[in-house]
Amino acid sequence: MTRYQYLASVISQRIEQGLYPVGARLPSIRVLSKEHGVSITTVQQAYRTLEEQQWVEARAKSGYFVAHRKIRPDLPACCNATQCSLTIPQWERVLDMVDPVNAAEIALGFAAPDMTNNSLLPLTRSLSRLSQRLYPRTFGDEDIRGCVELREQIARLLIDSGSHMDASHILITDGCREALSIAVRCVCKPGDVVAVEKPSFHAGIQLLHGLGMNLLEIPTNPVTGISVEALELALEQWPIKAILVTPTGNNPLGFNMPLERRHALLRLAQEHDVAIIEDDTYGELSYPYPRPATLTSMDDTGNVLLCSSFSKTLAPGLRVGWIVPGSYMNRAVHMKYTSSGPTAGLAQLAIVDFIKQGHYLKHVRRMRSQYQHNRDLITGWVTDYFPCGTRISRPQGGFLLWVELDKRIDTQWLNQKLSEQHISIAIGAVFTAAGNYDNCLRINYAWQLTDEIKHAIRQIGTAVQQRLDGHVSVS
Amino acid sequence: MTRYQYLASVISQRIEQGLYPVGARLPSIRVLSKEHGVSITTVQQAYRTLEEQQWVEARAKSGYFVAHRKIRPDLPACCNATQCSLTIPQWERVLDMVDPVNAAEIALGFAAPDMTNNSLLPLTRSLSRLSQRLYPRTFGDEDIRGCVELREQIARLLIDSGSHMDASHILITDGCREALSIAVRCVCKPGDVVAVEKPSFHAGIQLLHGLGMNLLEIPTNPVTGISVEALELALEQWPIKAILVTPTGNNPLGFNMPLERRHALLRLAQEHDVAIIEDDTYGELSYPYPRPATLTSMDDTGNVLLCSSFSKTLAPGLRVGWIVPGSYMNRAVHMKYTSSGPTAGLAQLAIVDFIKQGHYLKHVRRMRSQYQHNRDLITGWVTDYFPCGTRISRPQGGFLLWVELDKRIDTQWLNQKLSEQHISIAIGAVFTAAGNYDNCLRINYAWQLTDEIKHAIRQIGTAVQQRLDGHVSVS
Repeated sequence: MTRYQYLASVISQRIEQGLYPVGARLPSIRVLSKEHGVSITTVQQAYRTLEEQQWVEARAKSGYFVAHRKIRPDLPACCNATQCSLTIPQWERVLDMVDPVNAAEIALGFAAPDMTNNSLLPLTRSLSRLSQRLYPRTFGDEDIRGCVELREQIARLLIDSGSHMDASHILITDGCREALSIAVRCVCKPGDVVAVEKPSFHAGIQLLHGLGMNLLEIPTNPVTGISVEALELALEQWPIKAILVTPTGNNPLGFNMPLERRHALLRLAQEHDVAIIEDDTYGELSYPYPRPATLTSMDDTGNVLLCSSFSKTLAPGLRVGWIVPGSYMNRAVHMKYTSSGPTAGLAQLAIVDFIKQGHYLKHVRRMRSQYQHNRDLITGWVTDYFPCGTRISRPQGGFLLWVELDKRIDTQWLNQKLSEQHISIAIGAVFTAAGNYDNCLRINYAWQLTDEIKHAIRQIGTAVQQRLDGHVSVS
Repeated sequence: MTRYQYLASVISQRIEQGLYPVGARLPSIRVLSKEHGVSITTVQQAYRTLEEQQWVEARAKSGYFVAHRKIRPDLPACCNATQCSLTIPQWERVLDMVDPVNAAEIALGFAAPDMTNNSLLPLTRSLSRLSQRLYPRTFGDEDIRGCVELREQIARLLIDSGSHMDASHILITDGCREALSIAVRCVCKPGDVVAVEKPSFHAGIQLLHGLGMNLLEIPTNPVTGISVEALELALEQWPIKAILVTPTGNNPLGFNMPLERRHALLRLAQEHDVAIIEDDTYGELSYPYPRPATLTSMDDTGNVLLCSSFSKTLAPGLRVGWIVPGSYMNRAVHMKYTSSGPTAGLAQLAIVDFIKQGHYLKHVRRMRSQYQHNRDLITGWVTDYFPCGTRISRPQGGFLLWVELDKRIDTQWLNQKLSEQHISIAIGAVFTAAGNYDNCLRINYAWQLTDEIKHAIRQIGTAVQQRLDGHVSVS
């Protein structure tokens, strides 16, 4: 985060906490410059950012005042429990969504990170250099556990998540998807019941379905995460074998589960001797820094399996992920050997270069700040352009916004409507196996939020509003 | 194949067929030059090659004569049927074998192709060029079915195997291993019985074991392949769901199953409504050209699933394979989506370049000829340096030789013994789940067969001979 962005976030937090009430005059540029030991220009930039985000307004010759901000939309509602084993697949819809044939010009539905930042350039240089010859390590068969230097670097990165481990605890996979697939197969057999967040990542749902698991969807709060209370009830009624959660930078809700809830969840799982599969894909993109401790770092039973990848921090096409399988390492290595063989060496070695030369931390820091900045921008746009009553998430990490529309709106219809304007979104229905969320959508705000995207958000809001107006005039 | 190699193979075939008996004088250089329309130098090179392979011997001022060749070793014995569901895993041994910590300097145990040939250089150029920027197609999320241009090219390559298909019939995977895993999961569920060749590729055995299948090992002839007769008996006694075979360039036996046996196998599978999973990894490395037709190309029921990759033709670390899943495409795409997500785009696009520019066919042609040439060399060395009674395979494709030693030799012991000389081999025991083949080994002859490798083969033979001598003196 740059100085001015940091200063802006300090001021916006003070406004949020009520320290500066609406309409109040804010400290002058000179005062802030002295208080924070930064230049006049930095304070000016901070105020301009806050103005853009509609936190403050400038009045000629009087300075900056706390803006009469539109009231922030409510958070999405927390769904009721679905305490039955459900296996309603949404595969056709997911396939439609990921099919490149259906990709719109403004594709807001994919969960792709911004790969246009210059801070990624050293990675391309390493890749290009390493692929100039077919070295046995880049193009031969790598260690089935993955490149040891990369596992060492990942172990170092995981210190931030509260974990102290070494290369031998980590197994490299073909992206987080394979890590999750291995994790589920380590602790479950077909027909077992797995508890998941509701809503949860569509690939996770499909993965469990594909492996023959029965899903049990547990209500999940957009701020505090999976309901430990509902889960406790469920554990008494169902033979749950594993709990799949994404506690940091949740997809699609964006929350960071608070620390005390993490402890409660872990305690509950331990009491019932149930494995936790922790999807940490967005862990490093947590806006609060240092990032919250992982469940894995708090566990001492070996029954928590962490899955992650470089797909959201670097690029999804690298197909490099990892699993920290706790006490299941032997089983996990066997599954890796039999499900795809060793992961490609080239990308692994290029990432090692990138991390070792210090580019990785710099890049992730930059992206984290960009995504946080973008969250505020897109929140403002949705607030401005979507009908009153729209509910939105308040992401604490990652780059995905969850939007809940009026019950009468079907986002499958909306997506078709938007395709005329070359816009696509992720429809809510694929984030559950229970057939809810038809009125929800997920928007990616990773990329530079250009006027084009602002216009697209406005078009989505307008389409929804028109549909609602139609409903009113009909009824 | 170069001219002189072609000419050498013509002459060696004639000798093999008895056209030129042992001791007979061979046509003069001048005569052959005229007969084949090639230069004197080419004929000289051909004769030199044949001399190296011990087919002919030069006598001063008299010309070339058919050599008194050592009698070629017998083929390996065909194992008895193992008509019971067996799940004896050899995982610890396999893991030992693939662990890079245990890799010897002269690693004859891996099934890696030769990647040092200049004909691969254009591939590195494409890789290097394509990785200079993080294009969405190379580093974003590819089509879950794989890059369409690559699928088109694979469809073209498959014409040689007798198949006429298009891109929509092919799904790209992370190597052949993932293709096989998807194929098994398409047609079987855990607990099902799968028939396999005995011996068969250790990763296939581990894969079936990992997916919870029961293996039924069918005796497999080193020349004609899986015993259709034994399989027929097995089908009457066991609820077999699928048959996993490698009919072309078999691993580890090297045979190309004769056409009439292929037809018989397919007919049998169809009669019993059993799926065939055809591992075609070494298909393009068949020495007879054009390569034998695949089972897939002969099938019209959609119940044959072909799995292959570029791991043996180009480089294993590319991790690009494919499956032609017949009537199971929808299921296969779902498995691909949930088991690892889309395959990395970079390697796919580089391979497209390589094929389109004509480098692929040229490279494969060259490697096929090198491997065939190497087969003759290594056969000669094993014949010379291994104890009498050693049996060896007669590979018709690929680059793997199967060696059966005296029953008293344990190749696990041999491997340990050889590690002192920095040599490693693949032990026979991992190629079955039934605990046989302790006296067998597999040797890779892909690489340029230097004097160092010749020496290594001699050392293996000597170690075996000394062990046998020890046995004799003890008894």
